Amino acid sequence: MDSLTSHDLDHFFKPASLAVVGATPNKSKGGYSIMANMLEQFRGPIYPVNPRYEEILGVKCYPSISAIPAPVELAIVFVPAHAVPAVIEDAVRAGVKAALVESGGFAETGPEGQRLQDEMMAIARRAGIRIWGPNCTGLVNTREVIFTPFMRLPHVELSQIRGNVSIIAQSGMLAAGYMLQMISSGFFKLGKACAIGNKADIDETEVLEYLAGDADTEVVMAYLESIVDGRAFLEAARRTVASKPLIVLKSGRTREAAQAAMSHTASLAGADEVIEGALRQIGAFRARDFMQMMRIGKAFSLNPQPFETASPNGDQVALVTVSGGGGVVTIDLMSSHGLYPAKLDPATIDKLKQVFPPWMPPSNPVDIWPAIEQVGVERAVGESLCAVLEDDNVDGAILLTFASRDTAGFPAQKLGEACGRLHKPIISWVFGDVRFFDEYRQRMEGQGIPVYDELETCVEAMAAYLIYAKARR
Amino acid sequence: MDSLTSHDLDHFFKPASLAVVGATPNKSKGGYSIMANMLEQFRGPIYPVNPRYEEILGVKCYPSISAIPAPVELAIVFVPAHAVPAVIEDAVRAGVKAALVESGGFAETGPEGQRLQDEMMAIARRAGIRIWGPNCTGLVNTREVIFTPFMRLPHVELSQIRGNVSIIAQSGMLAAGYMLQMISSGFFKLGKACAIGNKADIDETEVLEYLAGDADTEVVMAYLESIVDGRAFLEAARRTVASKPLIVLKSGRTREAAQAAMSHTASLAGADEVIEGALRQIGAFRARDFMQMMRIGKAFSLNPQPFETASPNGDQVALVTVSGGGGVVTIDLMSSHGLYPAKLDPATIDKLKQVFPPWMPPSNPVDIWPAIEQVGVERAVGESLCAVLEDDNVDGAILLTFASRDTAGFPAQKLGEACGRLHKPIISWVFGDVRFFDEYRQRMEGQGIPVYDELETCVEAMAAYLIYAKARR
Repeated sequence: MDSLTSHDLDHFFKPASLAVVGATPNKSKGGYSIMANMLEQFRGPIYPVNPRYEEILGVKCYPSISAIPAPVELAIVFVPAHAVPAVIEDAVRAGVKAALVESGGFAETGPEGQRLQDEMMAIARRAGIRIWGPNCTGLVNTREVIFTPFMRLPHVELSQIRGNVSIIAQSGMLAAGYMLQMISSGFFKLGKACAIGNKADIDETEVLEYLAGDADTEVVMAYLESIVDGRAFLEAARRTVASKPLIVLKSGRTREAAQAAMSHTASLAGADEVIEGALRQIGAFRARDFMQMMRIGKAFSLNPQPFETASPNGDQVALVTVSGGGGVVTIDLMSSHGLYPAKLDPATIDKLKQVFPPWMPPSNPVDIWPAIEQVGVERAVGESLCAVLEDDNVDGAILLTFASRDTAGFPAQKLGEACGRLHKPIISWVFGDVRFFDEYRQRMEGQGIPVYDELETCVEAMAAYLIYAKARR
Repeated sequence: MDSLTSHDLDHFFKPASLAVVGATPNKSKGGYSIMANMLEQFRGPIYPVNPRYEEILGVKCYPSISAIPAPVELAIVFVPAHAVPAVIEDAVRAGVKAALVESGGFAETGPEGQRLQDEMMAIARRAGIRIWGPNCTGLVNTREVIFTPFMRLPHVELSQIRGNVSIIAQSGMLAAGYMLQMISSGFFKLGKACAIGNKADIDETEVLEYLAGDADTEVVMAYLESIVDGRAFLEAARRTVASKPLIVLKSGRTREAAQAAMSHTASLAGADEVIEGALRQIGAFRARDFMQMMRIGKAFSLNPQPFETASPNGDQVALVTVSGGGGVVTIDLMSSHGLYPAKLDPATIDKLKQVFPPWMPPSNPVDIWPAIEQVGVERAVGESLCAVLEDDNVDGAILLTFASRDTAGFPAQKLGEACGRLHKPIISWVFGDVRFFDEYRQRMEGQGIPVYDELETCVEAMAAYLIYAKARR
C-alpha cells in the first residue's frame, strides 16, 4: 500500500468535478444509471465521456477525459476491463487526481484479469493517481452528496437519509442493497457507504482511517472478505474505537467460504482467529450476519457515545420483564455473550418493594407483571427501571415488553432521561400484538432506547454497548 | 406422573361444558376476561361461579360448581391460591372430570405455596380428577374452540387463525403473547396452544404425546423451563418426530437461568447437555430464542412433510445468489450449522452455462447476477434453481435475492413445483428495497418457499429441514 495520507480520499468523497467514463443514454446500462444518479445528486460539473455520443441526458459528451476543456478531479470508470488501462492513461494526461473503477473483469476472474489490473495500477502509480476498485459500486457520501453505484437510485434526496453511520463493504451488491434497505426501511441513517471491491490500491485500512477521522461519521460498520494487512487494519481499528464504535463482519472464516471469496473479489482470507480475538480485545463488535450488523449498528447509531460501566467487569445486567419465562431465556443468552444477571443492592430491592405487591419478593430478573397490576404500567415500568439503573451493581438494563394498547403508557421520556443521567443503556425486547410494535419502537427509540423483536439481538446489542464502554473507560 | 392415557386431555381440549370459577363482572380482572372470551368462542354451556354475583355478562352465576344443575366436564379455576383446594373438593362433589387452575401463588412462591399445591393434588388424585397448571394461562384449541387465558382475546374468530402448528409453553405470558403475535402478524396459523405452568399433574410429556397423536397438529413447538422426566420426554419426542417436526426451546441451560426458572414456575432444570444431544439425534430442532423458534416453525408450517435427502449425509446445499459476498457469508454460517456447499455435477454446470455469460464459469455459490443481465430474472432464477435441485449432489438450495421491482419476475410457481417434484427445499433470503419484501414473501411462501431477511435464519431453517428429513428417511 502506498503511504499517502488519507486526505487523498477527499478526491473521491468530495470531488469538485467529475467525469463519467462509459456514460450512455441506454437506460438498461449501468453507465446510464451512474450518469442519471449524478445529475440528480451531485452539485459540481459532470462530464459524460463516450466517443459514440454528442450528448447524454442533455449534457455535452466528450470522446475522452483529456478532451474536456476544464479540470476534472475524479474519473468514474465503467467500461469493459480491457479498455480501462487506456482510460487511466487518458486520465493521467487530463490531470485527473483519482479514478473510481467500477468495471469487473479484473483479478476476480483469473490471471488475465490480474494482468489487466496490474497494468492499470502501474500506470496509476507512475502518475500518482489513486485508484478505488476495480470491480465495485464505489461510494456514497450523503453530505457533500456523491453517489457512484451503477444501480439507479430510487427517487430520494440523499440529504434526507443523511445520518451518522458509515459503511465499508467489500461487495458492491451488498453495499448497494443494504443502502436501499436502509433508505426504504428507515433502519438508521447513512453517512458514507464505501464499496471497495478488488482494492487494487485503496483498501479497507485506508478507508477505515479516513472514517475514523471523519466528523460526520459517528459509527463505522465494515463488511470484509479479506484484510490486506492484518496488523495495519487492527491498528486502524484501535484508533477508530478510540473515538467511535466499530462493527466488523469478516467473512471467509471457513475454508469453503474462503474459496468462494477468492472467486468473488480475488481475496485471500487472513488468519481469522487472530483477527477475531484482537477485534474483541480492541472493543470492536464482530458480527456474523448482515442483519445482525444492521441491528447492532442501529443501537450505536442511537447512542454513539460510550456508556459508563459501573461494575468492575462491566458485565452486570438487570432484567425488567413482564414474562418470567422471557427472563429465563434471556439469562441463558446472556451467558453465551459474556453477560451476567446483576445482584441487586438491598436499597434497590427496597425501592422495588414500593411498586411490588407484598407477596412478591423482588429479585433480578425483576418480574413486573404483578407490579403493573398493582400500580399501573407507568409507575411499574418507570420506577423499576430507574431503581435498577441507579444500582451500582448494574451496568445496563434489558426491558422485556408485551406490546398492547398498554404500551402507550410506558414512560419513554423518563427512561431516556435516566439513561442519559446515569450513562447506562436500556434495550427493549418486544413481543405480543405486532400492531403496536411500530408505535412502541418509535417512542422508545426517540429516547435512545433500541427496540428489537428478538431476545438474542437485545443481548448482543447490550454486549456490544458494554464491550465498547469498557474499551473506552 | 399418572399412567393415564392421553385421552384424558380431551376433557381439557374439547369439553362438552365448563364452569368458570372466579368469574367476575369487573373488567380489570382476569376472571372477567376468561368469561368474556369463552362467551365469544366456546360453543357449549358456560357456567360462571362466584358467590358474590347472581349473573355475569348476562349469564346466571352459581355460588359453587356443585350448585350447577347440569353436568360440568371442565372447571377453569381463577381464584386466590388459598381458596383453590376447596374449589377442587367442590369440583369432585360436582363430578367434574378435569380442572384447569390458572391461579398463581403455588409452588413457584415457596414452601407455603408448595403445601397448597400438594393439598390440591392430594384431593384431585383421590378423586381421579386431572389438573392442568396451576400458575398458567391454560390452553387454546382453534378447532373445537376453547380459549382459557385470563387476557382478553382481541376481536378475532379463532377459526380464522386455525392452522397446523401447536405450541407447548411452560410460561403463560409467553404463550399468550406469542399467540397474539401470531394472530396479529400472520406468522403462521395455530392448532393448539398449551401453557402448562407448574405442571403439578399434567406435564410436557403428556401434552406432547397428545399432540403427537393429534390429526390437526402437523408441527409441534415446545418452550420448556424444565423437564419432569427426561427419559419419558425424549421417548415422546422420538414418537412425535416419527410423524411430525418438533422444535424445542429449553431454557435454564445455565446455573443463573436455572435459578431464575425456579422462582418462575418452580422448575428444576434438568441435565441439559444430555437433552440437547438427544434431541438433535432424534431429529428435533433445538431453538435458542423465541423468534428463532417462530421462524423455524414457519418453515415447517409451510412444509410439514419431510423432504428427501439426496447426498449420503444429507448436508449438501447449493447457493443461488445475486451477491457474491452474501454467498461467502452464507457458507461461513453453513459451517456453523453442519451444512456444506455441494459440489455440482458436470451436467449441472452444463445446464447453468445455458444462462451464464461465456466469460463466467458456473460454480457453487451460483452467482446469477451476470445471468440475470444476460437472460432476465425469470430464466436466470428459474433455470439455475431447477438445475441445482435436480443435481443428486444437492439436498436443498438457498436463494439470495435482492428485492426490487424485478423480484415480481421471479418464477415462484415453477420453483414451488420443482421443490414438490424433487422433494427438496428452497429457502430464500431477501435484502434490498423493503417495499418489495411483503409481496415477494407472499408469492414465494404461497409456493411453500420460506423467506427470511436474515441469512442465518435461512441456514438454520435449511439445517432444520435436512436434520428432520434425515431422521425420517
